[in-house]
Amino acid sequence: MVFSINQDVLLDTLNVIQRGLPVKTPLPVLNGIKLEVFEDHLVFTASNTDIAIQTIVSDESLVITSPGKAVIPGRYFIEIMRKIVSNRVEISLIENKMMVIKADRSEFKLRVMEAEDYPDVDFLDLGKPIVLEAKTLKAIIKETNYATSQYEKRPILTGVNLKHEDDKLYCVATDSYRLSQKILPLSHDYESFNIVIPNRSLDELSRTLDSINEEVSMFINPNKVLFKFRNILFQTRLLDGVYPDTLRIIPKEFPIIVKFNKEELLKAVERVSVLSPREKDNNYNIVKLNIRPDYIVEVSSTNNEVGDAVEEIVPADDVVGPIIKIAFNSKNLTDALKAFNSNEVTINFAGEIKPFVIKGELDPDMLHLILPLRIE
Amino acid sequence: MVFSINQDVLLDTLNVIQRGLPVKTPLPVLNGIKLEVFEDHLVFTASNTDIAIQTIVSDESLVITSPGKAVIPGRYFIEIMRKIVSNRVEISLIENKMMVIKADRSEFKLRVMEAEDYPDVDFLDLGKPIVLEAKTLKAIIKETNYATSQYEKRPILTGVNLKHEDDKLYCVATDSYRLSQKILPLSHDYESFNIVIPNRSLDELSRTLDSINEEVSMFINPNKVLFKFRNILFQTRLLDGVYPDTLRIIPKEFPIIVKFNKEELLKAVERVSVLSPREKDNNYNIVKLNIRPDYIVEVSSTNNEVGDAVEEIVPADDVVGPIIKIAFNSKNLTDALKAFNSNEVTINFAGEIKPFVIKGELDPDMLHLILPLRIE
Repeated sequence: MVFSINQDVLLDTLNVIQRGLPVKTPLPVLNGIKLEVFEDHLVFTASNTDIAIQTIVSDESLVITSPGKAVIPGRYFIEIMRKIVSNRVEISLIENKMMVIKADRSEFKLRVMEAEDYPDVDFLDLGKPIVLEAKTLKAIIKETNYATSQYEKRPILTGVNLKHEDDKLYCVATDSYRLSQKILPLSHDYESFNIVIPNRSLDELSRTLDSINEEVSMFINPNKVLFKFRNILFQTRLLDGVYPDTLRIIPKEFPIIVKFNKEELLKAVERVSVLSPREKDNNYNIVKLNIRPDYIVEVSSTNNEVGDAVEEIVPADDVVGPIIKIAFNSKNLTDALKAFNSNEVTINFAGEIKPFVIKGELDPDMLHLILPLRIE
Repeated sequence: MVFSINQDVLLDTLNVIQRGLPVKTPLPVLNGIKLEVFEDHLVFTASNTDIAIQTIVSDESLVITSPGKAVIPGRYFIEIMRKIVSNRVEISLIENKMMVIKADRSEFKLRVMEAEDYPDVDFLDLGKPIVLEAKTLKAIIKETNYATSQYEKRPILTGVNLKHEDDKLYCVATDSYRLSQKILPLSHDYESFNIVIPNRSLDELSRTLDSINEEVSMFINPNKVLFKFRNILFQTRLLDGVYPDTLRIIPKEFPIIVKFNKEELLKAVERVSVLSPREKDNNYNIVKLNIRPDYIVEVSSTNNEVGDAVEEIVPADDVVGPIIKIAFNSKNLTDALKAFNSNEVTINFAGEIKPFVIKGELDPDMLHLILPLRIE
């Protein structure tokens, strides 16, 4: 194996590949990146228990003198590439044992492992993929993933449910205290599916999509889903189990509707949250919202040890319906508000002990729901 | 107590005062900030076991309606001030039990403690102070503090030694593996002194001096030193004990002198350090420096498990003296290089097992010394 390539091209591909490296693994070979040098292109592969990533490099700066393959120490190789200041780097293999990296006046030698020792990773891109714009996929992740559960008590809730049914793509996440739902049109030419993608995989996918603006092809396989874009294959395992039917917990009738300036509401809730009682067990920051008879909205919090906070908000439009007093975890509201693109949001109340729903004019396909807390 | 003031003025003073709040304290009242409102000014005080800070506020935006005093919950008060978006804030006290903060449409109430419960803090500004430019004091801290010991084994080494003797101010720090020394002229009109200031206090002082460009008055008292600048009093305890005589460990003769471009040397050492063996016990990143017979300098590292790295550096000037091979902790060299303003530095070698000394043309008053490591 001998090849040379522009350093920034190599670094770009490593910045993608590193998302597939395990944080911790009982299988040392997975700490490595599998590098295969063919006649006219390179293939990099990294994988952990959740994710497998492969990139194919056939950049015009690439000059391949002889093919070969090896598993190279992942984090060391990446750290070296980040620290090198050189236009080109030359990489070669000595006796399948040492990789030599030459750049400017530096020379690094890294012990490698046999490519044969790397577990087989199948990237399954057969069948007809679902094609989505990268920005649509990024929006789905941003707007739903935050509402997944961070705890393993109900594993199925640690992922986002994507369901294709009746020309629609339903994207839902819930930790059973809050819910985020985005519904997009999706042609019935595609087969119907119902999958749950782990939240951590979606975080990594979102970062990998950061600078991507083209289309993404999504191949759904048993237990796995593969995203294919540019020169990248990103595959993640799916969560086992049946995702709960969440549509039925969304109230149908909302006797009280209040419109807010999103930033004003967000900042007010963040300010009064400073004095929210912090219960370590459930990380609740309890904030109360009170629609007064004069239709001014009060958000407030009380901390018996420290003090209390109250702030008045003038709604952005006439309040519809009777007055109400409701309490909730402030983080559930601020997280939801941050997911909106709209400057104005409406909060739709079904009653003091029923879930309330947030919608935004610029986000017609999106709905966020929060369960209130019962307080004395 | 009733007063109002511009929010940014209050926030500026709180950003200084917070450096005096304890991270942890057995004395709950110290988590508070003592606020005293006089006829025409405010006094804020915070203190912990190391540091005490006081600021006096008599800004033109300040309107005092009635005096008073209380101890207010420090971190809550600061967090509230940071989140408020309002031109002015109004602060008042209800029955010496609750402080009310009004800003725009928000109102916060915080439980306060009695000012009498706050321990007395004496800020001793008697006698003739040593007057230094803030930028000089900041430079002393930046160039020496990094070399102090982070371990409590020899407590005296966790501080910077400031010694006034023979018209000179000697500033020295060492962790017994490296040493930083800065010598400045200081008039013999000042009394001589020999003190050791804790490194953490200097870190906080440096941050407090961040935006300060005026003169700083330094009052040296038994066990304490007080820095007075602008409207701020910053007092810290001193370390007990006798600082070691470090001058005698600095070699006098340097048979080998090599001049380097600082950035080139720094980056090369950082690159080869990627493969330095990491010993957790002493945090050594061993790097070797080798002056070859052709007077090219090689820096290198070897990691038995991963591989090795070598980089060539062409010295910035003719090498004086015989060839040499020396090993050292790379962090000691990179920390030292970062303290220099000079673009070119000379490394002065006294021998393979003797300390070597780094100097810079633009930093004539500064000297950094590093002990080599013995390797096989």
